[in-house]
Amino acid sequence: MFCSIERTLSIVGERWTFLILREALLSGTVKFADFEKLLGIAPNILVERLNTLVAAGILEKREYREEGSRARFSYHSTPKGEQLKLVLGALQQWGDDNIPPAGGVTMVRQTADGREGVRVGFISADGVPQDASDVQILPSDSYPFERRAKRLLGAAS
Amino acid sequence: MFCSIERTLSIVGERWTFLILREALLSGTVKFADFEKLLGIAPNILVERLNTLVAAGILEKREYREEGSRARFSYHSTPKGEQLKLVLGALQQWGDDNIPPAGGVTMVRQTADGREGVRVGFISADGVPQDASDVQILPSDSYPFERRAKRLLGAAS
Repeated sequence: MFCSIERTLSIVGERWTFLILREALLSGTVKFADFEKLLGIAPNILVERLNTLVAAGILEKREYREEGSRARFSYHSTPKGEQLKLVLGALQQWGDDNIPPAGGVTMVRQTADGREGVRVGFISADGVPQDASDVQILPSDSYPFERRAKRLLGAAS
Repeated sequence: MFCSIERTLSIVGERWTFLILREALLSGTVKFADFEKLLGIAPNILVERLNTLVAAGILEKREYREEGSRARFSYHSTPKGEQLKLVLGALQQWGDDNIPPAGGVTMVRQTADGREGVRVGFISADGVPQDASDVQILPSDSYPFERRAKRLLGAAS
């Protein structure tokens, strides 16, 4: 898959996976049992999704043992995982802006020193915020135009 | 659903939907038949996903007629849809940074005047880019803590 959106989605592009990441990255959930209870997700699906995230280096699996219990597992986000906070922030912001909950927005994004109103946005290479409508996302020289053309022509009858 | 991430995902959180949006927002695809060919998606699934996006006000459906053909439909992103460019940009950037394609990155993000290297990032209310690791995403006063606590306790045996 040449498209980075598609490759990223092949790892995280599933509703449960986004919700697992929300718990891991925003709520500090780490224990398998807590993911299970908070999300109401079937354990076999949870195992499968967590394993995918561990294999991709997004979460790190650790063993822990509580007094008098058998060994259990916890899951902790890696630096690679932390970078997905932006994807979650962008999804959250779109929901807040376009389909806000009746009772008001339930999460706020703030700076390290506690100032609210942090937004996700485009930023130029020299650090200047850009209006989304001004930003162009265009094919580079590595873009496989022939493949795209073939698809368009190939399926035409 | 009180969580904005979850509400947004209830509309766009499906792999095909993201890819349809990629075509609509980044590649300028508008015709039903072109979405079908480019994505290799089954027409019934494509109809269903496009209808969801139209109902949510993300795409606008228009009828058009080519010389000697029956009426067909095209799909055009709305301002609400344009805002999802940030979600796509964040997914793309994560893929570019963490699992880049062998042949080099295939899409570039640039400013209106053609400067490359635009990134998706967090920006404070006064317009200053923030390191993702510094940004805190925290529950507001509207966050239903009781519901979360109940889930954690309720499912415990």
